[in-house]
Amino acid sequence: MNYSIIRYILFRVLEFAGIFLILPCLVAIIYHEKAGFAFAAVMVVCIVAAQIGKQWKPKSNIFYAREGFVTVSLTWILLSIVGALPFYISREIPNFVDALFETVSGFTTTGGSILSDVECLSRSVQFWRLFTHWIGGMGVLVFIIAVLPLSGGYNMHLMRAESPGPSVGKLVPRVQSTAKILYGIYIAITLLEIILLKISGMGFYDSVVLSFSTMGTGGFGVLNSSVGSYAITSQVIITVFMILGGLNFNVYYLLVVARKPKDAIMHEEARTFILITLIASVLITLDIRGYYSSTALAFKDAVFQVASMGSSTGFSTINFDLWPSFSKAVLFVVMAIGACAGSTGGGLKVSRIMILVQDAKHELLRVVHPQILKKPHVEGRAVEDTTVRSIQSYLMIYLMIYIISFLVLSLDKYDFTSNFTAVMANINNTGPGFNAVGPACNYGGYSVISKFVLMFDMITGRLELLPMLILFSPNTWKKY
Amino acid sequence: MNYSIIRYILFRVLEFAGIFLILPCLVAIIYHEKAGFAFAAVMVVCIVAAQIGKQWKPKSNIFYAREGFVTVSLTWILLSIVGALPFYISREIPNFVDALFETVSGFTTTGGSILSDVECLSRSVQFWRLFTHWIGGMGVLVFIIAVLPLSGGYNMHLMRAESPGPSVGKLVPRVQSTAKILYGIYIAITLLEIILLKISGMGFYDSVVLSFSTMGTGGFGVLNSSVGSYAITSQVIITVFMILGGLNFNVYYLLVVARKPKDAIMHEEARTFILITLIASVLITLDIRGYYSSTALAFKDAVFQVASMGSSTGFSTINFDLWPSFSKAVLFVVMAIGACAGSTGGGLKVSRIMILVQDAKHELLRVVHPQILKKPHVEGRAVEDTTVRSIQSYLMIYLMIYIISFLVLSLDKYDFTSNFTAVMANINNTGPGFNAVGPACNYGGYSVISKFVLMFDMITGRLELLPMLILFSPNTWKKY
Repeated sequence: MNYSIIRYILFRVLEFAGIFLILPCLVAIIYHEKAGFAFAAVMVVCIVAAQIGKQWKPKSNIFYAREGFVTVSLTWILLSIVGALPFYISREIPNFVDALFETVSGFTTTGGSILSDVECLSRSVQFWRLFTHWIGGMGVLVFIIAVLPLSGGYNMHLMRAESPGPSVGKLVPRVQSTAKILYGIYIAITLLEIILLKISGMGFYDSVVLSFSTMGTGGFGVLNSSVGSYAITSQVIITVFMILGGLNFNVYYLLVVARKPKDAIMHEEARTFILITLIASVLITLDIRGYYSSTALAFKDAVFQVASMGSSTGFSTINFDLWPSFSKAVLFVVMAIGACAGSTGGGLKVSRIMILVQDAKHELLRVVHPQILKKPHVEGRAVEDTTVRSIQSYLMIYLMIYIISFLVLSLDKYDFTSNFTAVMANINNTGPGFNAVGPACNYGGYSVISKFVLMFDMITGRLELLPMLILFSPNTWKKY
Repeated sequence: MNYSIIRYILFRVLEFAGIFLILPCLVAIIYHEKAGFAFAAVMVVCIVAAQIGKQWKPKSNIFYAREGFVTVSLTWILLSIVGALPFYISREIPNFVDALFETVSGFTTTGGSILSDVECLSRSVQFWRLFTHWIGGMGVLVFIIAVLPLSGGYNMHLMRAESPGPSVGKLVPRVQSTAKILYGIYIAITLLEIILLKISGMGFYDSVVLSFSTMGTGGFGVLNSSVGSYAITSQVIITVFMILGGLNFNVYYLLVVARKPKDAIMHEEARTFILITLIASVLITLDIRGYYSSTALAFKDAVFQVASMGSSTGFSTINFDLWPSFSKAVLFVVMAIGACAGSTGGGLKVSRIMILVQDAKHELLRVVHPQILKKPHVEGRAVEDTTVRSIQSYLMIYLMIYIISFLVLSLDKYDFTSNFTAVMANINNTGPGFNAVGPACNYGGYSVISKFVLMFDMITGRLELLPMLILFSPNTWKKY
């Protein structure tokens, strides 16, 4: 393990954390809020510490997958701690564990809160909560790669470890260019949403922060009713942008940069994601239409909620925990599948499911015709056996973390459904679950141990399991 | 597809169904019950139909895995229909779907009932309910192989399709001898349990039928309190025999037939199963001891329930649905893992989990050291890649059936926990779940559609997924 380079990158991360904190400081100045002092203090400490620390140059440039994974995990832990400090120092979230939970939930784009009342928070604190979604959605290291001319071959390892999905597509040969294109697209779509929400009648501040939350597929809101109190037009816009946030960003690359609209439209994973969203919305509409004055209104809420849970955003327009069992079961499945790989969303990812389902079909075929050797296909290419194996192992690791987390959470006072869906909502970075962790409730009632387990799940889920797990393997820490 | 041989074997199955029905007839005669006429009628029809049908000899002896799977699935469906007739004709279960559900639950050793009161049933009907567990536990085709000198190479395909576990061990080179040894061991242990239960003070009738239920890891009882009203000694004996029923029968072969006690004691899967049972029992004891006057009593109930759910029996001594969340979560996990391969129990099977967990560990290791190629080991032998792949696909197929069943059940009136654990309890052949399907409740409230889904799950789970699924593949039915 090359410790010196990890240390170096972490100091650069600290520097960027400081830079990001300038924004809530500005918000605090605009609205004359004293929480600004908390942001300013943390900002100054970060930047000063980083200036000193980064003088301490790495001894060696050795950087393999192992260093990539460890750096990414430590980055996310560091970022969460630093990001929680302003909440704690400003006393707006006076308990540090709660502040940390809120920040982890922010950066990992989960959106599950420990707060029962978010409307009492100051605007700058609100801004920071929702801005963490936007940073975490595309990834902080991807951002650093995009703006810093980092030398050495470690860009790829960092990018691979931080980007969601079973196979990271380098859009263009240079990793830094890929990172720039990704952030360029991300900024453009976010700006578009801000403009559209503003036009739909939403206030400017809300338009900005909700666009951060939507495009990062986060789920934090600024009102206790999530987004249920906004105009229907605004809700429809948010629905569309949640789906856009859950799509594979390759689609936008093909559409805008590579100018291959046909390829973009034929993108299999994106089509499957949209198909799942449609089918689930229709099923739920049929189930809940009796509660609404018109089928159109039922469909509006159904598609909103499916897009929200499928893209792992977690917004709600109504308390879907009161829906009938079938609708909740559909939401649960949509939540488990999650968004596309290469999106800002969480979950198992549509492409993984596509590969696993195809392989399951082939397994059935092999019983009857053992001589047939078929490989799963995604985006017109055969998926290699080693990739299928990795994805299958991924599923098992996922289930193991799921089960262990569920067991620990069960030590708390809540029931089966609450604990079971709480784990799902956190490891898949969705936010709300059912019962005690439903959209009208929050995670504040869990014990400190459960909160730490859920934080672990959130970061592990966001980083696609392996980076966090290998932190705990003694093999990882061996010297070269 | 060689239809003629399948037809021939099904007529032989019908013949054996008729022979098995002689036993409840005898019970009816002893207790002077008029349900005996129902049994006698079905028995006569089965035997007569079989005598006529089996004259119709197969045209060809071609028999591959495909024929094996289809024969096994159809056998289980036929057996369930025939077995349900006496319940229906005697009017003790006047609804045919319910009678069918009860029979499928019996043969698959699930033990989930649609009856709210089992004590009002006649003794012969009780006997048949619990005897189906015993037949289904080891397998009806395994029984036929053991007693009939079937020529041709299809023994192995039938045995492989009906025996639980990822790899069927032929204990000895000849399949028929293996089947004989298995049934020999099975009968011996069952007799031992009958004797011990009798000595412990239980009535003779109860000792016999409960031994059928225990050794088949079924779960039907003759009292509404399951086994909670029997003496503690009897409960302890049942605990031990549930564990024995959940062990890989290779252990008994090694112990009694091959006389290799050291190998038997070192059997990895059996040791892991017992270890899981112990750990889970201790965890639950710690969780529930506050509700008991002594830790020993708490441990007695804990180990009973863990053995019951782990071996997929489903007996209960108390209403464990009232236990705290953690104990229920532990039971849920134990239920998911299930018993050993090559036992009479259900679930994913301990050896599958052992292989999947080892592979997951290796996947983590591969991140750090991509050059290391490690294979999972079970019973001192490396597991081949193709086997690991099959098991991983198995897990995915299992999850797919699980999710679809859960969605359909959710159309019914029950909540998330009830539906989610109902699927688990049926596909793993356990019996009771939580909430509306808890040990104090039953499956009678589900709709007809849900009942059929659960019946499908029970048979699919008992036959290890593939046989039932390939019934629905058009490829299966192609002519040679």
